[in-house]
Amino acid sequence: MDVEQACFEAGIKFGSLYHQFAGTPLSLESADSLERAIEESIENQPHCRSVTVEVQRDVLAAALEESTASYTELTGRFLEVEVVIEYEGIEVVTRMEMEDGYPLMVLESVRQ
Amino acid sequence: MDVEQACFEAGIKFGSLYHQFAGTPLSLESADSLERAIEESIENQPHCRSVTVEVQRDVLAAALEESTASYTELTGRFLEVEVVIEYEGIEVVTRMEMEDGYPLMVLESVRQ
Amino acid sequence: MDVEQACFEAGIKFGSLYHQFAGTPLSLESADSLERAIEESIENQPHCRSVTVEVQRDVLAAALEESTASYTELTGRFLEVEVVIEYEGIEVVTRMEMEDGYPLMVLESVRQ
Amino acid sequence: MDVEQACFEAGIKFGSLYHQFAGTPLSLESADSLERAIEESIENQPHCRSVTVEVQRDVLAAALEESTASYTELTGRFLEVEVVIEYEGIEVVTRMEMEDGYPLMVLESVRQ
Repeated sequence: MDVEQACFEAGIKFGSLYHQFAGTPLSLESADSLERAIEESIENQPHCRSVTVEVQRDVLAAALEESTASYTELTGRFLEVEVVIEYEGIEVVTRMEMEDGYPLMVLESVRQ
Repeated sequence: MDVEQACFEAGIKFGSLYHQFAGTPLSLESADSLERAIEESIENQPHCRSVTVEVQRDVLAAALEESTASYTELTGRFLEVEVVIEYEGIEVVTRMEMEDGYPLMVLESVRQ
Repeated sequence: MDVEQACFEAGIKFGSLYHQFAGTPLSLESADSLERAIEESIENQPHCRSVTVEVQRDVLAAALEESTASYTELTGRFLEVEVVIEYEGIEVVTRMEMEDGYPLMVLESVRQ
Repeated sequence: MDVEQACFEAGIKFGSLYHQFAGTPLSLESADSLERAIEESIENQPHCRSVTVEVQRDVLAAALEESTASYTELTGRFLEVEVVIEYEGIEVVTRMEMEDGYPLMVLESVRQ
């Protein structure tokens, strides 16, 4: 069924995005270029209409203030992500958000 | 809907698996331990009942014979993977297989 | 110079190891298989005599107790690693250890 | 010794760079943003003065022409990389280049 396939495709993009880029060295200076690279690389994948990535600068700045280092590593707590999939006329919107300190991947809407 | 969520979860596991481990140094000697680690690490993820990973030894052996190196990097052409998801009584079976030289992630069955 | 090359090789192994596997889903149950896979995969790399990886079970158990999830992601705080390089008769021993909450890669000894 | 440490640091950057980003979905359209993100993220690491990454567009275009897909995955054959380390007055220049179809990380110069 097309709806099932569309949701499966949406999941692939989220898993790919997170596990490709988690661990990348990250600072306030390099956040812009990482956002663009994540968006454009995942948009290459099939049926992916758009990817929007926002590194949470306030969370990142707070994490860096607590440490002696000038950078940290990308993890889910610094990320807000929206991915839109289009598969055979079905649009799936998904989002990543923090819940109880864990990055949760959420299926937001499935529309025909 | 539960079916949509189940398929979304299945996609997450496949994207995670592939992009976490692609690029890992791989030889005939280290194939066993990599298979087990991929299976057990992805099985940690929510709603994941089982992961079965088989490194295709014949494809790997052929690739190593063509080269001067004793190892290569994990890519999709060396992998056969099955992932089974269980979400709210729905079972989703997914598989990765090669098609035209590309690793294709396939939604095999969705059952209630 | 051989000493320089030996130290360069040692650094490559550490960077590879960390950035290949950071982010891997990790639990007390899957720690064994991940340790073996990291060791055997990095030992494939040239001039790498041995890799020893120990997931710190006490640190991992404490992290899991603080959370509602049954697994977490591999980061440096869970790892103790020793890598031994042999290059043209030179032995380089390196170690990863935590310092001020950051994983530090340390050149321990260089011997001819 | 500072020279040893400088060469060790150079190796770390190369291993990190390669194993963080290998496997990233890549097309001619997304090559620019990936180059910038790799450069800026690795430049965050200690003692790293500069990172220059060039995706080989001709090699990438040829690989895409041979396939039915509009993108591929980042591997060493698409990359030319130079990393410059500065550690306690010592400058180390390293390069990644292809040799016999394998990405080779090369220590180019060590200067005080």
